[in-house]
Amino acid sequence: MFTVAAELPTGGRAGVIETPHGQIRTPAFVPVATRAAVRAVLPETMADLGAQALLANAYHLYLQPGADIVDAAGGLGTFMNWPGPTFTDSGGFQVLSLGAGFKKTLAMDAKGVEADDVIAPGKDRLARVDDDGVTFTSHLNGSTHRFTPEVSMGIQHQLGADIIFAFDELTTLMNTRGYQERSLERTQRWAERCVVEHERLTAARPDKPRQALFGVVQGAQHEDLRRRAARGLRGLDFAGYGIGGAIEKESLATIVRWVTEELPDDRPRHLLGIGEPEDLFEGVEHGCDTFDCVQPSRVARTSRVYTVHGRENLNVAASRRNFGPIDPECDCYTCANYSRAYLHHLFKAKEYNAATLCTIHNERFIVRLVDRIRETILDGTFTDYKADFLGLYRR
Amino acid sequence: MFTVAAELPTGGRAGVIETPHGQIRTPAFVPVATRAAVRAVLPETMADLGAQALLANAYHLYLQPGADIVDAAGGLGTFMNWPGPTFTDSGGFQVLSLGAGFKKTLAMDAKGVEADDVIAPGKDRLARVDDDGVTFTSHLNGSTHRFTPEVSMGIQHQLGADIIFAFDELTTLMNTRGYQERSLERTQRWAERCVVEHERLTAARPDKPRQALFGVVQGAQHEDLRRRAARGLRGLDFAGYGIGGAIEKESLATIVRWVTEELPDDRPRHLLGIGEPEDLFEGVEHGCDTFDCVQPSRVARTSRVYTVHGRENLNVAASRRNFGPIDPECDCYTCANYSRAYLHHLFKAKEYNAATLCTIHNERFIVRLVDRIRETILDGTFTDYKADFLGLYRR
Repeated sequence: MFTVAAELPTGGRAGVIETPHGQIRTPAFVPVATRAAVRAVLPETMADLGAQALLANAYHLYLQPGADIVDAAGGLGTFMNWPGPTFTDSGGFQVLSLGAGFKKTLAMDAKGVEADDVIAPGKDRLARVDDDGVTFTSHLNGSTHRFTPEVSMGIQHQLGADIIFAFDELTTLMNTRGYQERSLERTQRWAERCVVEHERLTAARPDKPRQALFGVVQGAQHEDLRRRAARGLRGLDFAGYGIGGAIEKESLATIVRWVTEELPDDRPRHLLGIGEPEDLFEGVEHGCDTFDCVQPSRVARTSRVYTVHGRENLNVAASRRNFGPIDPECDCYTCANYSRAYLHHLFKAKEYNAATLCTIHNERFIVRLVDRIRETILDGTFTDYKADFLGLYRR
Repeated sequence: MFTVAAELPTGGRAGVIETPHGQIRTPAFVPVATRAAVRAVLPETMADLGAQALLANAYHLYLQPGADIVDAAGGLGTFMNWPGPTFTDSGGFQVLSLGAGFKKTLAMDAKGVEADDVIAPGKDRLARVDDDGVTFTSHLNGSTHRFTPEVSMGIQHQLGADIIFAFDELTTLMNTRGYQERSLERTQRWAERCVVEHERLTAARPDKPRQALFGVVQGAQHEDLRRRAARGLRGLDFAGYGIGGAIEKESLATIVRWVTEELPDDRPRHLLGIGEPEDLFEGVEHGCDTFDCVQPSRVARTSRVYTVHGRENLNVAASRRNFGPIDPECDCYTCANYSRAYLHHLFKAKEYNAATLCTIHNERFIVRLVDRIRETILDGTFTDYKADFLGLYRR
């Protein structure tokens, strides 16, 4: 499934992932289509701007329209008119953050756990973890649902993405060391159940293309836990590995390095939820192959755009009479055809196309950045490129 | 500027309008880009779906971003990345409906007018008409502005559309006959002032392509007033003519016929704000050449779509598992690539692309309908096509 074409001394690599819906040349940024749609951008436009794959969310699609609808439509790619490779996450992150986020609280089950393990006990808790799974409240309508490793696998098989993730427990940096340890053991047992259920479901529908299951490495900020998690999942021989959990910007490179040192070199590694330029350089440099993040799209809708000099806000008075593009060096559709003055006007006028045009620019900026990083790994200029880019970007 | 290629016995015709930015084959539906953007659809997509021209609103662009900004950007077409022909309306409709609509009241100046001429006198009046122009309150921020024929011409010259409209007074069916008569005289005098100002501004910027000025025929439901208005404007030798004002569906054909009988055959006629299929047939049949309407786009955003069997709402439970297109006979991008089930999901999930995909379908439906009407005028099958289409559409 994965072949490495070139490597950095630090462990980074350029390679190719094969999927039933085509290749992904890595490192690659995978734009997010949470609800089977990239917000405000059509799929052909995403292909035109260089997106190689899209990632959708199992939690959101389970709640609306329902995984059975996506299945009946012919699977995620057909449903959303995206012929290329697709990913779905397991829903683990969302049931614990969004489900809980309904009232901005996150509660772990207090039964048998020290008091300091409980982040927000009481009547507001909307997601409860036990050893078998997670019971959570829908952020849409307050209805109660339960995800287990088997439920997550069932949903992700119905969605039918090429690359799917094992169901894991998200912890936060606020959890105690004791809780992190027990959580990690739980995530390992869930991973084992995911493998079993994934094989059972794969065997039950031999007509469908085989989906690749990735295990997710947790362990928060602790070196021994991260290494233990990676070794444990390695033993389950996943098709690839995700790196998840709460990671502070300063420790990103270190944590990624701990994990990738333990993982097999012949399997792709996906760094979950990471997409800022500085973080992409660190992630690639230390051995991650694919990345997803809502950030380029989310900030675009609030008029924030990436440029070689850093992120800028278009919705400022200085944009009003600026008839130049967002970034003169950018090759995107928006920069080729529209001025900052026009985009400023669209935001002021609350036009849908403001979001569309800025999302196109931001997604292209990040996709192109990672594509360029790939080229520099292949031609041996990665270190120079990183220094040049970040020298300008941070100023 | 306008050549007729074929005519119906009822006065309808197929022709070609020449503009500095290309031809418009008529009859033609002109989609609306109120704020220099078709809501939720990019300009290339509008061209792909067959739109030949776009119409923007002088009132909206005057308030935001300001006509000077559009001028400095190179004019409306360059500003919004639309290389084809463009129209702007005069702002007359908006200052009296939207400006007034700020508090949903419309007030005519009561001074020297019978009491029954005053629709909504008192402190809430937000647009006041006098013989020189209209003072109105911005629907955006409540600021006070004044449009006169000269101001409207100045704005429309800065916007730089190929086809612009004379500044007219909108009346409603609630106005008395007496008020309608005085209003019509005022609109005629404003039209004379527009011609003078248009020539002055054209001479002042000989480098710019010449804009075509259309007079607007008012006169509400009164035959003698409509005919008098048309004859009066004909005397001013406009490049083309708009037909405006409050028109009830049942009297549309009759009113259009009164007007077109008085207008010169060698000038194009634009029926303002009309875009429903039944009305388009009537308008074309009695001699209108171009049409604009926000309806296809506006209803799309509330999940209403046109089909050969009439308008349908996608946001109903029956759409949930309907994996067919909106309309199997439609050749639009949306029908080629997406199911009703997917569109239903996008509306439920409040995704931007719901508006985009349904607007593409609706605009294509109406553009294609009018294109097909053109073909049937040229090949002599108009009457049969009208009967066939409306036979299905109304059922």
